[in-house]
Amino acid sequence: MKNILVAQSGGPTAAINATLAGVIREARKRSEIDRIYGAFHGVAGILEDEIVELDQTFASEKALELLEKTPAAALGSCRLKLKASDENADQYGKIIEIFRKYEIHYFVYIGGNDSMDTVLQLSKYCAENGIDDICVVGAPKTIDNDLCGIDHCPGFGSAAKYIASVCVELEREIDVYDVPNVIIIEMMGRHAGWLTAAAALAQEQSRDVPYLIYLEEIVFDTKKFIRDIRAALESSNRVIVAVSEGIHDADGHFICEACDPDQETDAFGHKQLAGTGRVLARLVKDEIGCKVRAIEPNLMQRCAAHILSRTDTEESKKLGQLAVSLCVEHRPGMMASLTRVSDEPYEVRYTAVPIEEVANKEKKVPLEWIAESGNGVTEKMISYLRPLVQGELLCEYENGIPKFLVIPKQ
Amino acid sequence: MKNILVAQSGGPTAAINATLAGVIREARKRSEIDRIYGAFHGVAGILEDEIVELDQTFASEKALELLEKTPAAALGSCRLKLKASDENADQYGKIIEIFRKYEIHYFVYIGGNDSMDTVLQLSKYCAENGIDDICVVGAPKTIDNDLCGIDHCPGFGSAAKYIASVCVELEREIDVYDVPNVIIIEMMGRHAGWLTAAAALAQEQSRDVPYLIYLEEIVFDTKKFIRDIRAALESSNRVIVAVSEGIHDADGHFICEACDPDQETDAFGHKQLAGTGRVLARLVKDEIGCKVRAIEPNLMQRCAAHILSRTDTEESKKLGQLAVSLCVEHRPGMMASLTRVSDEPYEVRYTAVPIEEVANKEKKVPLEWIAESGNGVTEKMISYLRPLVQGELLCEYENGIPKFLVIPKQ
Repeated sequence: MKNILVAQSGGPTAAINATLAGVIREARKRSEIDRIYGAFHGVAGILEDEIVELDQTFASEKALELLEKTPAAALGSCRLKLKASDENADQYGKIIEIFRKYEIHYFVYIGGNDSMDTVLQLSKYCAENGIDDICVVGAPKTIDNDLCGIDHCPGFGSAAKYIASVCVELEREIDVYDVPNVIIIEMMGRHAGWLTAAAALAQEQSRDVPYLIYLEEIVFDTKKFIRDIRAALESSNRVIVAVSEGIHDADGHFICEACDPDQETDAFGHKQLAGTGRVLARLVKDEIGCKVRAIEPNLMQRCAAHILSRTDTEESKKLGQLAVSLCVEHRPGMMASLTRVSDEPYEVRYTAVPIEEVANKEKKVPLEWIAESGNGVTEKMISYLRPLVQGELLCEYENGIPKFLVIPKQ
Repeated sequence: MKNILVAQSGGPTAAINATLAGVIREARKRSEIDRIYGAFHGVAGILEDEIVELDQTFASEKALELLEKTPAAALGSCRLKLKASDENADQYGKIIEIFRKYEIHYFVYIGGNDSMDTVLQLSKYCAENGIDDICVVGAPKTIDNDLCGIDHCPGFGSAAKYIASVCVELEREIDVYDVPNVIIIEMMGRHAGWLTAAAALAQEQSRDVPYLIYLEEIVFDTKKFIRDIRAALESSNRVIVAVSEGIHDADGHFICEACDPDQETDAFGHKQLAGTGRVLARLVKDEIGCKVRAIEPNLMQRCAAHILSRTDTEESKKLGQLAVSLCVEHRPGMMASLTRVSDEPYEVRYTAVPIEEVANKEKKVPLEWIAESGNGVTEKMISYLRPLVQGELLCEYENGIPKFLVIPKQ
């Protein structure tokens, strides 16, 4: 038998299961593929033989449709980064053993840049050990939008739609009382400001409330920040501040460390940055003294299935399908990808890139897309972002509450 | 001419504009009413003559429909509580002067329990001063659901739907990694735990992840809290904690004051409580050491127009319409209200209550609706809540972002 295995890894998104659904749909269509297996908890779960058969769970179209609108990783995830194969033969040996046990000839790993490293390492191990009947490919995802080798990332469009929507709602809130009012909203993004830039879509739409947008890519100057706030309040009495969780000063110190120097680190070595908004709110309170609130969507910006971007979920599905095609065409060590043909009309072309272009790399916001003022973004950024949040997709409701699919652990 | 004036007051909600739309719709139908005026910023705005004509802005059905799906208070709000009329004749005199200027014979004030005090005071002033051609009535609202004299409050159903939806989404998040995991979500509610109880709707729906729900109505014991967490983690490795912002210890000290003793106070004398979740997360980190996050929806739980409860917005509209009827029937000092006839099928009856039953009073969660364990709610609470979150209402989108109505200041 020639079976396929799929797993998810890294931080979850609202669209990562659309990619999984794409994998399942395509695998089902291919005569070259027999059974469809999933591993819980990414590569960590493979090592523990947490393998389940998915054919039964997704026998019906209904189940697949529900999966497509379920946020977070239905197969769970891990933050395990395998050491390079030359230092770690045992683990790789174990993985291949598990693959053999289940007659896995195709493996699709859905994840971000660290997870693509696992695809790279595993592909290398197979190549170096003459294992030419197992094809390992990557399918992208991340709300941070920081993968190289792809125009934009699955999961990002929905997170951007969420952020922009929350911003226009907060504009209505900030407008309510007749007093100087500052709302600071803190976005995820690790080291890239893409998601923070999504606030500009709200600003562009309503043109009603001034925004100050600070991305991680440039040094954050607290004195300038206070000057910017004063200027905005003078002209309009209210301002929304969108800020990346990872803004830092000229010495590279994260602003949020003033809030909690003891930031958690995950197994990929990334700090769990949080609290930037609160530090800035305290600063505004002390220096200016006006009404100010810090809003931290936190996990909600990456699991808001009640406000999916249809563009995002459609592309996420297609990338999952493409990953399966890459497997069947025996193109190991590639990642399903897409390039942008045009902004308007919006058009993309599906393609594949060598994993080396993606693994362990980060794509930050180009500095020329950040306004010279240092507190906004350019028209180029808006044109880039706008198509990604188009289209709505109502999740399923039961008794007034979103209904999701949970894959039984079996 | 006999014109109507409408204004909004207190904390905004996602449905307060549905009530405003109801007022406008009904006023338009009534031959006894000529022009429709709105005051920006509640009674504070009336005193400053911030009066605008609304007939033109809402000439079209389209504009009214857009208003119904716009969150926060389209006429702005205030936190001004008028002193009792016997101490404050000047302000009341000024209000009546403004009413006479615009030939206002009907005034609908949409607000919570403090705002209903203004309706009470103004009605008393009119009665005591022989002003029998101005009818002042109240229309209810609050996400806190703490108004007396009404089964549940406009704005609450949508906020509860938002909370329950966020909870089921966080269940998918908490399920992702294979490590002990605690997510703490902090709800608004000032002194009542109604909104926090909405988490139980999520728990009831999915029955997948254990919940611990702590309402403000009972003393919070941090030692018991840690014991509860340990027990939940033992049985299931993950737990969602829903907690009211205003939980307090046996001495009445708010738990969030450990985070920020310097909590802001608004003009109604209410502390802006926030940070309870963070205090508890720190406690869990110190005492247990597992993965833990504090999520604070903050303002988002009251302006999430992208997830309105249709039941809520329909009722909010009807209460606005009823308030106008009360005006035309000359029933000053009354508040539009509703009682519940049955849970299943869900049925309500529209009525009116004397403002004295509402003004300055608070309706807390009945202690018998809280589970004996102190960390959950009873079936009675679920039956009470369930109908209020039913039905979806897609807001309008433009370029992938919610579109709202902004009343021009003129």
